[in-house]
Amino acid sequence: MSTTTPAPARVEHAMRHALSLAAHGPVTGVNPRVGCVLMDDEGGVVAEGWHRGAGTPHAEIDALSKLAPGAAHGLTAVVTLEPCNHHGRTGPCSEALIDAGVARVVYSVSDPGEHSSGGGARLRAAGVEVDEGVLRDEVSAFLRRWLLAEELKRPFVTVKWASSLDGRAAAADGTSKWITGAAARQHVHEQRAAHDAILVGTGTVLADDPSLTARGDAGELLPFQPLPVVVGSRPVPADAALRRHPRGFVETGSRDLAAVLADLYDREIRSVFVEGGPTVASELIRAGLADDFLIYLAPTLLGGPRTALGDLGVGTISDQRPLHIDSITPLGDDLAILARTQSRSPE
Amino acid sequence: MSTTTPAPARVEHAMRHALSLAAHGPVTGVNPRVGCVLMDDEGGVVAEGWHRGAGTPHAEIDALSKLAPGAAHGLTAVVTLEPCNHHGRTGPCSEALIDAGVARVVYSVSDPGEHSSGGGARLRAAGVEVDEGVLRDEVSAFLRRWLLAEELKRPFVTVKWASSLDGRAAAADGTSKWITGAAARQHVHEQRAAHDAILVGTGTVLADDPSLTARGDAGELLPFQPLPVVVGSRPVPADAALRRHPRGFVETGSRDLAAVLADLYDREIRSVFVEGGPTVASELIRAGLADDFLIYLAPTLLGGPRTALGDLGVGTISDQRPLHIDSITPLGDDLAILARTQSRSPE
Ligand SMILES: NC(=O)c1ccc[n+]([C@@H]2O[C@H](COP(=O)([O-])OP(=O)(O)OC[C@H]3O[C@@H](n4cnc5c(N)ncnc54)[C@H](OP(=O)(O)O)[C@@H]3O)[C@@H](O)[C@H]2O)c1
Ligand SMILES: NC(=O)c1ccc[n+]([C@@H]2O[C@H](COP(=O)([O-])OP(=O)(O)OC[C@H]3O[C@@H](n4cnc5c(N)ncnc54)[C@H](OP(=O)(O)O)[C@@H]3O)[C@@H](O)[C@H]2O)c1
Repeated sequence: MSTTTPAPARVEHAMRHALSLAAHGPVTGVNPRVGCVLMDDEGGVVAEGWHRGAGTPHAEIDALSKLAPGAAHGLTAVVTLEPCNHHGRTGPCSEALIDAGVARVVYSVSDPGEHSSGGGARLRAAGVEVDEGVLRDEVSAFLRRWLLAEELKRPFVTVKWASSLDGRAAAADGTSKWITGAAARQHVHEQRAAHDAILVGTGTVLADDPSLTARGDAGELLPFQPLPVVVGSRPVPADAALRRHPRGFVETGSRDLAAVLADLYDREIRSVFVEGGPTVASELIRAGLADDFLIYLAPTLLGGPRTALGDLGVGTISDQRPLHIDSITPLGDDLAILARTQSRSPE
Repeated sequence: MSTTTPAPARVEHAMRHALSLAAHGPVTGVNPRVGCVLMDDEGGVVAEGWHRGAGTPHAEIDALSKLAPGAAHGLTAVVTLEPCNHHGRTGPCSEALIDAGVARVVYSVSDPGEHSSGGGARLRAAGVEVDEGVLRDEVSAFLRRWLLAEELKRPFVTVKWASSLDGRAAAADGTSKWITGAAARQHVHEQRAAHDAILVGTGTVLADDPSLTARGDAGELLPFQPLPVVVGSRPVPADAALRRHPRGFVETGSRDLAAVLADLYDREIRSVFVEGGPTVASELIRAGLADDFLIYLAPTLLGGPRTALGDLGVGTISDQRPLHIDSITPLGDDLAILARTQSRSPE
């Protein structure tokens, strides 16, 4: 190995920079968020790029495009995800890096995709030096939703609910406006806009007639609207507010949640925000189809029958569903707890 | 008013010091925690004292006892609570201050007691200059439990429960060991020791056979043991662990919670820690007899029928029981949320 390749500390520094570039990409969509830095042997950044979503250049291509023809020759490409190896909407990045004469490629996480993986091997076969695994934990955590979706061939599922401190979603008569305050409600809208789809049961549609739009402080539509999806056999009423949603909506007519998620994956949906109701949320958890939990706790007690979750099939304490708490955020008088299923999700 | 009396800023400073002295007193017991500073006209602290619990000298007497006879003449007494005016286990503090020749008395909070109040008036009648209300908010908050008990003639009630994030106290079969971790369990023991009594329903006694002792890290008994109290009509079994409690226990045989609390007040119990179960906790909340809530949330989901609270009589959302959150404390993987009933409790 030549002594003029960049030192490990410089490579790690460049990878951290590539990760920060990746974060400019959209959180929604079928493609992963990827960042790329082209560096010279002294560790100097010659060009940078990131992926802006399906149909736009991959991070490597974006970085290469900043240089004059031939200028990438002998450089090191530091990229958060293994360069792809397939002809999708854009050409394979492995080929582009080879054609540009890049001497070395360092990536963090391997591409698990059936069609897109193999970029590392392709590069090696062409005589490019390849290193992987730099900052793997951080990049895996960053790509967590996308990696899980690729692995399980279903969207990443965030289950959200709002409850009193004693776990009730509504008073005995079903009224619940407003358990949580304005800050928590605005937070929900932002979370909606950070998922490809928003899923509810027919019970919620019939009881609440929700519009399921993602809105800003002043009620205006946010730039990105997730696709509404309704599960359950009962029809969505002809006059439902959902029928005026800017993206339309998917009426599955089905209670088979695994099949619905697989179908959404085939429609390029990689993340789903579940907004209830209790029956659908509980069934997803029972079936092991819930990854993240976003729980809004309001400083109030309600008691009574309207629990935010129903039966999870936990017969005895050893069957409990342990979570890992990621964060606790005060929102006005409320608390937002972000938790994730322990053990299963890749990290 | 003479210009040689201590300046307001010095009086406030002395009151803050008196409050810190008061905090040395025991959190349990029938008497309030009181601190006293004797200061000269330049604001210098000449003597300090605090109350160590029923049967020991009051804070004013404790401070005066530090001085030679006659040495308190012309001083200002700064005391957190209005000096008492009755012959209890000790003589009235108002008389002692008059006899000692104190020129001025500044207190923060008035004594609401039927027999003990009137000290301020007695002092004024004897020609002592009297000021009140200095740092009233802070001292009232500090004396919150005692003031509420004096006002309502019942003990201050803290309701504790441990639940999953979805508000369940146990799995469907009733198993719950251990929802919360070691740090939360130790925290519970310390909270027990900070209350005069610990109250449970017969349901919990029959289901769990709890010992209801306050124990340290190594299982040893803590110095103070609250008095166990059982509510409900069913008898405590002859072989119950409770029968080996170092303080004995009170078997009320009653479901009349207000009457039980009034009776405990007459037994000089001023604070009660309620450890369940769900029925008794819910009935106390319904009846407006719960002041503080100590909720341990474990990072897990259980679902199912065993909610930590049952019916609170909240038929519609406007009947909800809003709380004020005082603190959120991480304990290992768990969270302890201390909340209080909004509006009613004096502050
Ligand atoms: N506080 C909150 O965060 C929150 C959020 C949402 C809703 N809510 C409240 O929840 C209440 C509605 O509760 P809900 O439980 O009826 O609503 P839901 O979960 O939205 O709908 C339940 C219905 O979904 C269908 N479904 C789809 N997949 C299913 C499956 N795998 N298993 C069983 N059923 C399935 C069934 O209807 P079909 O018969 O049509 O198949 C079922 O009756 C409303 O009062 C609403 O206000 C509260
Ligand atoms: N996770 C936790 O924090 C926690 C804490 C404690 C208990 N638990 C669990 O809770 C379960 C026991 O539940 P529970 O609700 O039966 O226990 P409970 O509240 O201790 O006892 C209920 C009983 O108390 C009596 N009672 C007294 N005053 C009453 C009133 N005003 N109204 C109605 N009943 C009154 C009644 O019995 P009589 O017929 O004798 O009058 C009633 O059946 C156990 O499985 C235990 O493990 C969990």
